[in-house]
Amino acid sequence: MSLFTRDHWISFGDCDPAGIVYYPNYFKWMDTCFHTFLADRAGGHATLCDQLGSRGIGLMEAKLSFRSPGLEGQTVTYSIDAITWSGRAFDIAYSARVGERLLLEGHERRGVFIERDGRLTAGDVAPLKALLRV
Amino acid sequence: MSLFTRDHWISFGDCDPAGIVYYPNYFKWMDTCFHTFLADRAGGHATLCDQLGSRGIGLMEAKLSFRSPGLEGQTVTYSIDAITWSGRAFDIAYSARVGERLLLEGHERRGVFIERDGRLTAGDVAPLKALLRV
Amino acid sequence: MSLFTRDHWISFGDCDPAGIVYYPNYFKWMDTCFHTFLADRAGGHATLCDQLGSRGIGLMEAKLSFRSPGLEGQTVTYSIDAITWSGRAFDIAYSARVGERLLLEGHERRGVFIERDGRLTAGDVAPLKALLRV
Amino acid sequence: MSLFTRDHWISFGDCDPAGIVYYPNYFKWMDTCFHTFLADRAGGHATLCDQLGSRGIGLMEAKLSFRSPGLEGQTVTYSIDAITWSGRAFDIAYSARVGERLLLEGHERRGVFIERDGRLTAGDVAPLKALLRV
Repeated sequence: MSLFTRDHWISFGDCDPAGIVYYPNYFKWMDTCFHTFLADRAGGHATLCDQLGSRGIGLMEAKLSFRSPGLEGQTVTYSIDAITWSGRAFDIAYSARVGERLLLEGHERRGVFIERDGRLTAGDVAPLKALLRV
Repeated sequence: MSLFTRDHWISFGDCDPAGIVYYPNYFKWMDTCFHTFLADRAGGHATLCDQLGSRGIGLMEAKLSFRSPGLEGQTVTYSIDAITWSGRAFDIAYSARVGERLLLEGHERRGVFIERDGRLTAGDVAPLKALLRV
Repeated sequence: MSLFTRDHWISFGDCDPAGIVYYPNYFKWMDTCFHTFLADRAGGHATLCDQLGSRGIGLMEAKLSFRSPGLEGQTVTYSIDAITWSGRAFDIAYSARVGERLLLEGHERRGVFIERDGRLTAGDVAPLKALLRV
Repeated sequence: MSLFTRDHWISFGDCDPAGIVYYPNYFKWMDTCFHTFLADRAGGHATLCDQLGSRGIGLMEAKLSFRSPGLEGQTVTYSIDAITWSGRAFDIAYSARVGERLLLEGHERRGVFIERDGRLTAGDVAPLKALLRV
């Protein structure tokens, strides 16, 4: 079961001298998958930040486990598998595959950051949950 | 008239603190457009390099003129408008648009690089032209 | 003669499957050289934008000629060789070397962008020239 | 106590529309810190791969916890705090700071990948440990 999927075609320049995807790119595509999800569900990050009075739906943690390598010319499909909501954070579980083959298992913990006394702090995530209808 | 087009959805992370696309990303997407074209026409860069005995279809020059800014959430369409072949180089003319609006005019000069006496030099481009049927 | 120089150590992840620097990275380091120059001369881009009432000291054109390849483990030194000022734009000439060996000749045309009626337009560059004491 | 440190100056283009570092960049700099460490200790990744008969000292997992935001113009110092060796993997603990302020706590699990029957598998890490004198 997947809440959302997004494809990325792996280009020459996404790969490193070992001929496989350079790993920070996988994080960029995981983040892009999340932002595409926001656009699809609720008009995108900027619109949501306006509605929530937030400076950004930003990261507390990000992790990837690399299960098999991605190669030039392959299409990797990112999937948002689940979102778990707590008070001031939410956890997103990802997986990514080329066809049936598992490439990645991923996790992001994010917060809805608001500015208070010149500092960014994590606010209540319930209003975001409501807007995303998840 | 266009030889090939490729879309890129502009994500939050493609943009800079001014809220518009960070310009080196435009070069990455121009290069990706070229590599997608190689995949579409002739099996991709790696296959072509094998067939041509080449180390890479690499760059001699790259240039972009920035006509209007690209914003988060927009889809930019890159187009390969023309390829001009000379002896040991070829020139690719690009443009990129969001809808009707022109974002970029681009140019790459590339060569078919071969290794000779431990150095990369530009070889004859005619065999590549034949394989790409351009 | 150089107005400013900046070193970048070429890491594994800066290189592509051909084992040489992936070319869009060269544009990123050219831009970073410019921003480091702004920081060195006048407190950085954000400070200058505040002083100039500008949204960004952004790009109109960017070009690189690739003279020889950069390899993993080498240190490439970017140099700002000259800045030429006109009414609403300025041109920056760059070169980049590994030791004595020329890697790149580069050019950026930039403007001081201001927001007018919701659109970004290029303003007078003379105030920036004065602040940079070039 | 730190085994190795590396500085990165945060440039305009490293930051996103929220005005803070775009998070995948933090992984790139963590990887670059590791590769600089290899260069410092043992001639670099390519040399080590030759000595070890390895295709790459690649990733099994990567994780970052984001403790406070990095801003344009700041210098972030990455530190390799510890390396823990097991049979076919090793774990690297990182932290990153701007001055005294903690930005990141990081972790990479890496293996020494060798090609066997056309597949990449993780080999014994003891020879790498010996070469790095850690």
